[in-house]
Amino acid sequence: MNPITLSRIAAAVLAGAGMLAVQAQDKKDVSPGEVQYHAAPSPLAGVPMVESRNPKAPPMTQAEFDQARQIYFERCAGCHGVLRKGATGKPLTPDITLGKGTDYLKVFIAYGSPAGMPNWQTSGDMTEKEVDMMARYIQHDPPTPPEFGMADMKATWKVIVPPEQRPKRKMNNYNIDNIFSTTLRDSGEVALIDGDTKQIINIVKTGYAVHISRVSASGRYLFVIGRDGKINMIDLWMEKPDNVAEIRIGLEARSVDTSKYKDYEDKFAIAGAYWPPQYVIMKGDTLEPLKIVSTRGNTVDTQEYHPEPRVASIVASHFKPEFVVNVKETGQTLMVDYSDIDALKVTSIGTARFLHDGGWDASKRYFLVAANQSNKIAAVDAKEGKLVKLIDVGKIPHPGRGANFVHPKYGPVWATGHLGDETISLIATDPKKHKEHAFKVVQTLKGQGGGSLFIKTHPKSTNLYVDTALHPDPKVSQSVAVYDVKNLDKGYRVLPIAEWAGLKDDGAKRVVQPEFNKAGDEVWFSVWSAKNKESAIVVVDDKTLKPKAVIKDPRLITPTGKFNVYNTQRDVY
Amino acid sequence: MNPITLSRIAAAVLAGAGMLAVQAQDKKDVSPGEVQYHAAPSPLAGVPMVESRNPKAPPMTQAEFDQARQIYFERCAGCHGVLRKGATGKPLTPDITLGKGTDYLKVFIAYGSPAGMPNWQTSGDMTEKEVDMMARYIQHDPPTPPEFGMADMKATWKVIVPPEQRPKRKMNNYNIDNIFSTTLRDSGEVALIDGDTKQIINIVKTGYAVHISRVSASGRYLFVIGRDGKINMIDLWMEKPDNVAEIRIGLEARSVDTSKYKDYEDKFAIAGAYWPPQYVIMKGDTLEPLKIVSTRGNTVDTQEYHPEPRVASIVASHFKPEFVVNVKETGQTLMVDYSDIDALKVTSIGTARFLHDGGWDASKRYFLVAANQSNKIAAVDAKEGKLVKLIDVGKIPHPGRGANFVHPKYGPVWATGHLGDETISLIATDPKKHKEHAFKVVQTLKGQGGGSLFIKTHPKSTNLYVDTALHPDPKVSQSVAVYDVKNLDKGYRVLPIAEWAGLKDDGAKRVVQPEFNKAGDEVWFSVWSAKNKESAIVVVDDKTLKPKAVIKDPRLITPTGKFNVYNTQRDVY
Repeated sequence: MNPITLSRIAAAVLAGAGMLAVQAQDKKDVSPGEVQYHAAPSPLAGVPMVESRNPKAPPMTQAEFDQARQIYFERCAGCHGVLRKGATGKPLTPDITLGKGTDYLKVFIAYGSPAGMPNWQTSGDMTEKEVDMMARYIQHDPPTPPEFGMADMKATWKVIVPPEQRPKRKMNNYNIDNIFSTTLRDSGEVALIDGDTKQIINIVKTGYAVHISRVSASGRYLFVIGRDGKINMIDLWMEKPDNVAEIRIGLEARSVDTSKYKDYEDKFAIAGAYWPPQYVIMKGDTLEPLKIVSTRGNTVDTQEYHPEPRVASIVASHFKPEFVVNVKETGQTLMVDYSDIDALKVTSIGTARFLHDGGWDASKRYFLVAANQSNKIAAVDAKEGKLVKLIDVGKIPHPGRGANFVHPKYGPVWATGHLGDETISLIATDPKKHKEHAFKVVQTLKGQGGGSLFIKTHPKSTNLYVDTALHPDPKVSQSVAVYDVKNLDKGYRVLPIAEWAGLKDDGAKRVVQPEFNKAGDEVWFSVWSAKNKESAIVVVDDKTLKPKAVIKDPRLITPTGKFNVYNTQRDVY
Repeated sequence: MNPITLSRIAAAVLAGAGMLAVQAQDKKDVSPGEVQYHAAPSPLAGVPMVESRNPKAPPMTQAEFDQARQIYFERCAGCHGVLRKGATGKPLTPDITLGKGTDYLKVFIAYGSPAGMPNWQTSGDMTEKEVDMMARYIQHDPPTPPEFGMADMKATWKVIVPPEQRPKRKMNNYNIDNIFSTTLRDSGEVALIDGDTKQIINIVKTGYAVHISRVSASGRYLFVIGRDGKINMIDLWMEKPDNVAEIRIGLEARSVDTSKYKDYEDKFAIAGAYWPPQYVIMKGDTLEPLKIVSTRGNTVDTQEYHPEPRVASIVASHFKPEFVVNVKETGQTLMVDYSDIDALKVTSIGTARFLHDGGWDASKRYFLVAANQSNKIAAVDAKEGKLVKLIDVGKIPHPGRGANFVHPKYGPVWATGHLGDETISLIATDPKKHKEHAFKVVQTLKGQGGGSLFIKTHPKSTNLYVDTALHPDPKVSQSVAVYDVKNLDKGYRVLPIAEWAGLKDDGAKRVVQPEFNKAGDEVWFSVWSAKNKESAIVVVDDKTLKPKAVIKDPRLITPTGKFNVYNTQRDVY
């Protein structure tokens, strides 16, 4: 495969523009009108901005400026940042762009670059006129989106069913431990699917493109967060589980979790925003916002101020009353002690820039987080509140939460796939019994290709599943690799998941995000096509590696992430 | 006295424009050319800014914009903030100013307001043309001064005498415990004065208008910080004590201190900046910058983001390896644990907005910090890391470090004077033996008037001295009130300090900042006139309340704060 194409796709998905790649791929077989532009509007589009004109930049009319601003947020901000300070993409502030000049910038925008800049004009995504407009636009000061403080949050906060009006006991007969909360990306919903019967229990209205689902320590409440910063809190005890509270915590967001430490179960929720760069601690039963904390600060390496350090993954520690908050642009992992909200204690552990997703090791003491554009995994000790090690891995690691299993030779390992290459890195995580290997890459597997988003296994399984959902070759993106963790040297088998789905349309059919059921004997895959195409979920028997069920439903629009309640609640992965 | 005048002076000094008031007063008797404008240039003047034009604001030429920017920094930024978000003065962002319009703004700037806005045009400080220009200027977006990150700091960092080349033992015969480090405000120097002989040991070049001097835990090193963000580190063991290291930590700054906790003596220094809003931890022996932390964040009350939360006072805890960092605009007192710089632990204690100066109670467990525009003192428990109480006091408390003594009735109290009224508030600080009074104002004394900057006593003294340096009436500003702490109801005696100085010029002769010697038997006062006038230091016998010595020297230009090494090192006040 072409490494340039791959890094472009990787660049797009990394910055939260994942849908872009998928839609572009789908565009071949859908009507030309259905491009990302309209299908997945940025939550920042149309928001009033603090804007100004740089007198040295080429002139623009207000109409051009407004249109360019919208295109920028939809196409460019994910990689370059709202304030254009750069992240996955290069910085694009006027001090840099003015020196390049309009003609140079036009060429770059039109034709892209091998480093990952898409070829916006030659791909047909922008017209020549639009490219010219964007080249002028980025020589002006970046308009700043508004802040989103306590008053804004409170204005969006709704308690739909107050705690005292909620059920006192579980009012349904579902095995709620085995429910799968499934993101329906483009419909702004999650599907709650009964893992035992494979039936849809409810389709719950949520924010746009729910990024993750998390489960409260008790297992009763489900929290989902949309990319538009909207959180929905779902009560699984209701006769028909549904929203009981909601709030918007910013204009763009990715992460939510709830307190899990002893005596704090279900007490607090936390969510992190991309814009404004901040996190907020809320009451765990109502989402009432209690404390907003800005993440603006200095980068870990050069110690320069960054105005837009976005909050990537958040997890709840099992060792202390702490949330682990990973700040992307500054490369700071924050241990946020929630035991006294009025005297909030935060330990800033410098790790590496471009923190993204990650997961616990099997002991749940060490959090392993991808610093994606740094090609590193940072291992953080949640007990000691320290960085253990920065570990070099492959190109653009994207573990999701990663996969823990016991390696025949190296003991407990945690694994990540990569967006930028075909490798899978296995990192040993047991400093007690395997000290010499601990927090080193002990083995590198070769997979089907780059473009991997998720990797998964389960304590009851000996299989390791690796998707390649963003690989440009449909044969690769529509299948998964599976390794026998007891015989890793044998290589992988390929499961043709999309084929098993037997979909009527010829959509993108990307196979994404393996997720185990509670028992750990079956694994679910989304087969993800565009929103006007049929999608499905394929359930595979973990022992036989044969399809066990295919879930199809007209309501199952663009399914992506699935979160099994039990496994999510207990961080089993 | 006129309360309007007082609040104007208070407003000016509070925001760090103290000199403004003094110079304006002096202007009556000096040549018209010698105004603040030239005498005390803002450290931000002339710095290149990120600037832009608001298309909705009235047009300005580049020359007008540049001139207005400079006037803004010199005249307005102290109160209204560099980014015009407001602090002591009102917010002046375009969303507010555009609605007012040029004509309204001109009137306001020209004639001032009873709330404290100076009458810039009628006072003769600005011409009509300048007022018109400023009215237009503040409808444009505030230009943002540059950041000042690690590379900038390193570029200014100089180790003049490396630790290994410094004396191994004290090389002079001075009683260094009794040296007074004296700010020579307008000459950018400190005078090191031998407290025993009253002779000047050395005049040391420093940053502009040194705000404070602090002494390392060992008593060997003296740290001073200028308003321009420059820190000088002076080795008192040298034959002639002088600079051994220097650094600039921002464009404008106020505070410095050094680690005092057991096993961390002399190990770290910390300094806080006004711009950029940040603090930096440095090596205690070289000033090598180690860690920069931004203070941008959310206000304690409304939890809205503030882009310019300036670092006001900093002290070193005696109870833990922590610095207490007070952030003005957000009203957050930060307990910064320096025991692991790579995993910096910060407890943010929400107190009250507009934190400024403060000091320890006699036990050194409680830090009492003025929230000046909130008219409150916040008592923070350094042992528990919690807010104990917000205490309402008089108008605009300005304690310096305050004064601790044992009240005949209420036990240990800590006292503050006020800029905005003539009262002195006594706050009881002993929650063990005087629980019912603890952290309440137990008595309010009436002083000579408002405009008080500093209050002082000493464990060996029974006198409480209160200056009124910024009072508009020369009789009041040129004298101090002294109370017998055993007979507070008797009221105060007035000591005519400036008169005792016997100065040849008729300058402002403001009497400022009482400071005890090590023995606690004499108290020093600065008699502060303009830089082309004679100033002096008057030493008063604490027992007899008679002048004991007058220190005059042509090099003693604009003396203000004096810091006795022993008392500063041990927080004796």
